[in-house]
Amino acid sequence: MTDVQHMKWWGWGKEGVGFHWEDKPGFAPFVLDILDLDLHDAAVVEKPAFESLTIANPVAEPAFVAALASIVGEDDVTSDPMERVVHTFGKSLRDLVRIRQNRVDRVPDLVVYPENEDEVQRVVDAVVAADAVLIPFGGGSNIAGSLEARAYERRTIVSLDLGRLRKLIELDEESGLARIQAGALGPDLEQQLKERGWTLGHFPDSFTHSTLGGWIATRSSGMQSDKYGDIADIVRGLRLVRPGGVVAIRPVPSTSTGPSLREMILGSEGRLGVITEATVQVHRIPAKRVIHAYFFPTWAKGLAAMQAIAESDATPIVTRVSDARETRFSMATSKERRGLDKFLAGTALPGIMRAKGWNLDQICLSFIGYEGSPEHVKRQKKLVDAIVRKHGGMGVGTGPGVLYDQKKFDTPYLRDFLLDRGAAGDVSETAAPWSKLLPLYTAVVTAANCAFARIGRKGYIMCHLSHSYHSGACLYFTFAFVADQDMLTEYDVVKSAVQQAFVDNGGTLSHHHGVGVEHAPWLEQDVSPAGAQVLRVLFEATDPGANLNPGKILDEVSDPVAG
Amino acid sequence: MTDVQHMKWWGWGKEGVGFHWEDKPGFAPFVLDILDLDLHDAAVVEKPAFESLTIANPVAEPAFVAALASIVGEDDVTSDPMERVVHTFGKSLRDLVRIRQNRVDRVPDLVVYPENEDEVQRVVDAVVAADAVLIPFGGGSNIAGSLEARAYERRTIVSLDLGRLRKLIELDEESGLARIQAGALGPDLEQQLKERGWTLGHFPDSFTHSTLGGWIATRSSGMQSDKYGDIADIVRGLRLVRPGGVVAIRPVPSTSTGPSLREMILGSEGRLGVITEATVQVHRIPAKRVIHAYFFPTWAKGLAAMQAIAESDATPIVTRVSDARETRFSMATSKERRGLDKFLAGTALPGIMRAKGWNLDQICLSFIGYEGSPEHVKRQKKLVDAIVRKHGGMGVGTGPGVLYDQKKFDTPYLRDFLLDRGAAGDVSETAAPWSKLLPLYTAVVTAANCAFARIGRKGYIMCHLSHSYHSGACLYFTFAFVADQDMLTEYDVVKSAVQQAFVDNGGTLSHHHGVGVEHAPWLEQDVSPAGAQVLRVLFEATDPGANLNPGKILDEVSDPVAG
Repeated sequence: MTDVQHMKWWGWGKEGVGFHWEDKPGFAPFVLDILDLDLHDAAVVEKPAFESLTIANPVAEPAFVAALASIVGEDDVTSDPMERVVHTFGKSLRDLVRIRQNRVDRVPDLVVYPENEDEVQRVVDAVVAADAVLIPFGGGSNIAGSLEARAYERRTIVSLDLGRLRKLIELDEESGLARIQAGALGPDLEQQLKERGWTLGHFPDSFTHSTLGGWIATRSSGMQSDKYGDIADIVRGLRLVRPGGVVAIRPVPSTSTGPSLREMILGSEGRLGVITEATVQVHRIPAKRVIHAYFFPTWAKGLAAMQAIAESDATPIVTRVSDARETRFSMATSKERRGLDKFLAGTALPGIMRAKGWNLDQICLSFIGYEGSPEHVKRQKKLVDAIVRKHGGMGVGTGPGVLYDQKKFDTPYLRDFLLDRGAAGDVSETAAPWSKLLPLYTAVVTAANCAFARIGRKGYIMCHLSHSYHSGACLYFTFAFVADQDMLTEYDVVKSAVQQAFVDNGGTLSHHHGVGVEHAPWLEQDVSPAGAQVLRVLFEATDPGANLNPGKILDEVSDPVAG
Repeated sequence: MTDVQHMKWWGWGKEGVGFHWEDKPGFAPFVLDILDLDLHDAAVVEKPAFESLTIANPVAEPAFVAALASIVGEDDVTSDPMERVVHTFGKSLRDLVRIRQNRVDRVPDLVVYPENEDEVQRVVDAVVAADAVLIPFGGGSNIAGSLEARAYERRTIVSLDLGRLRKLIELDEESGLARIQAGALGPDLEQQLKERGWTLGHFPDSFTHSTLGGWIATRSSGMQSDKYGDIADIVRGLRLVRPGGVVAIRPVPSTSTGPSLREMILGSEGRLGVITEATVQVHRIPAKRVIHAYFFPTWAKGLAAMQAIAESDATPIVTRVSDARETRFSMATSKERRGLDKFLAGTALPGIMRAKGWNLDQICLSFIGYEGSPEHVKRQKKLVDAIVRKHGGMGVGTGPGVLYDQKKFDTPYLRDFLLDRGAAGDVSETAAPWSKLLPLYTAVVTAANCAFARIGRKGYIMCHLSHSYHSGACLYFTFAFVADQDMLTEYDVVKSAVQQAFVDNGGTLSHHHGVGVEHAPWLEQDVSPAGAQVLRVLFEATDPGANLNPGKILDEVSDPVAG
């Protein structure tokens, strides 16, 4: 069997790693305040027992299994129950709750681990020939339902795991281009590049457990996208295995070859085929990198400062500002007497803020990052500092930024921690023009609070701005509540309210998490019915047998046969 | 009748405007040298007589004409011969030669001028209902054959002129976004923005006679794309009228709503519908703007400098360098004792170059532009100057840059001037990674020279690099020869050789001119057969009746009936 590593089958990340609050003195009081959840008393539900899952027998003709085995080898096609469960879902809240509730309606029947593109091609052709269903699988971190089979699917479902395709194939140092296989995980590909002095610069929250192919298939964005661009900007060349042949997009910097095939493969979530490799822009590791922290007296001033920076000549790598509620959260997750706490638990900084007339309940924490030559970093910071001052903000140095850098990939573990204690926590993000951000923000917070009231639960919603562009930015919301009755039913009320507020207020249904099945109900509202129809026609015409990850991106009735 | 202005029916630009050589002392000797064409003696073919054209009677059922008239009004649907001829072609060399040779095989039968999107929708629906053919028409500057009807088309052909949709609808100053109708010409939309202190910053060679919708439909790029981006980067929101309804793409800065509909409409050349408006990124008019000229001792050093600038922290708005042959051309088109001539006809600058050991036959002229606050401009120039010096180049001030700015939109007139004298002149451009530019350049020049030899004519090919990106750049070639027998037959030999060299050497078939019919034979080689097949399936599925500008982008047999 192959050596591909996966996350915990029931939760985020590595076995043995999790969120801990005992060393964070502000955390328990904060959670008690915002969710009425007492961490000292809360019942903790342990990791579920794998044996308690009800897993249907695999649906697969022996001849088809033999055909796959003849392609990838006996050892790399499996119907092992653990392998099948690992490949059933991504890691959305819905996924985690269903796993914990033994609601694994439709587990893939087979998992295959091809070794190279030729094997992928032969698997794809075999799947189509057998009228089976193919779902490509990278790191398994998806949170939009892009990896799950349709519950009513009666055909054989094959999960194609790209974990063995993880090599840096070629590095063109003159062009700043690297050919990398799609199954490479973030840390793995960064390590391969780093050994030669280069970086991709793509650091999504899921970085440690997501792959290049997954980033492309869902239009991912990394924390330093202000400098490096979204994955759509980073990817130049692409190879997509389709039934009968490979779509090969050459890595030219720009082209006018009609509708962009590159931009059709980006975000395709397996519906057009299997991405096997990409040629991506890479950058020399910069001489200097630093993240500075700033505070703003209000959210509105923080947003205005980010907009002014985007319009200015300055080119920071990160521009991020949290609302007051997320700022409180950040302070509550600080360890004792370190980092933010050092500034804020003390008296010096709050004293300065009060002297400025700030309301400490309204302050907003911001991180702005710089990279490049020491001179470039110094100059960019000078430009930014002037803008921050003009918008009433103040810098507080690099201490909090170092902490931010250290724990930036840890947030998903917190969701599992809350889930263990009966609380639902999740994220939803959008993007909108600068002029619409503040009204959209207000509408989303209001919608979430109304939803909390509707389900009769105390809830919390917080937000930060990330990913600034010339004409707008991404707003990233996190919300939580302690479930009462059925968690997913209550969750749907809140999540739907947030999504609806996005599209009703000029935002998009998702800035970088993809559509999958979870966001599909809002696609028509986002891209218009005529736009959704173009996508529908595209998928139907390029995949007439509905063999390629059907049911994703476009909303469909639950079961076309049952109605 | 409507007040929409068009270019000369037989050539580029405005009536009464053309290229003149009498005030350019270096031009006639240069042309004599490179093409064996003596301008003092050359026979000049006058503007053709409109009456000599053989124009078939329009094919249009009276009921269909009446239906169109009921939508746009009697005055704005016409079968006037001049209107039909104006809408027959773009302005490629093939187009101009065919007009001059009375080879107007298939003239549109009707021209309509809708006033608003609602009328566009009703025209589109009427065309599909009548099984006619619709060809959207903007400024008519296309040089890839995107505007011509298939010669064998037997159905009624309707040219939909967007000239009446030219308003700046809305300016969102907070977001730097402007909603502009698709039929607005470059100078018109810049004027509307300028009145409010803004600019789009999109200046293609065709600027004076091309439209926003045309730029989008063909993936245009402007001279200042290094700063402002290609039109694909500039366009955020879009409205595309399709049969039955409008695809409305909201102007979010980034999104992950599956395959990008925005990037499918970009470059669609009318095959998916009619673009009626776009929401585009706009910028405040910068405080300062300046173009500096530089010289490099060789083409290789010039290219290396452009690559180093792209990799550096510097952010110029234009990076352009001409090869030695184009540098000669630039000097030959200088007016007496002004501009470049002032530097080069004299003895001072050549003396300095010789003292540096430069071969004056190898020197390459470069233009690099800067915009922003005076401080920003100063700093960018300092960064660039250091790179130029490191690559053996030298700055020669702003004089030539002022001239470049003044005459940058005049080049197309030169092609008509040459055509009047029996010489074919044309352009072809590509983009490729930095590492492939020099080998690609050498291959293209060799291919063109072999083609000149094959047709037995003395020819000239020259090139400049424009549009720099992180991972590569655009190479823009111009070639010319005096035709002997049939100009288009000879031209096809040269043009095909250039295009084939592009795709054989890692370049794309076109960086920003589109595919149309002229570049369609290379599409499969560029995007792979499987990629072309995806586009074919897309067009067939979204336009089953082949009513929307059929025959563009994908190569097809001349006449499917005749075979």
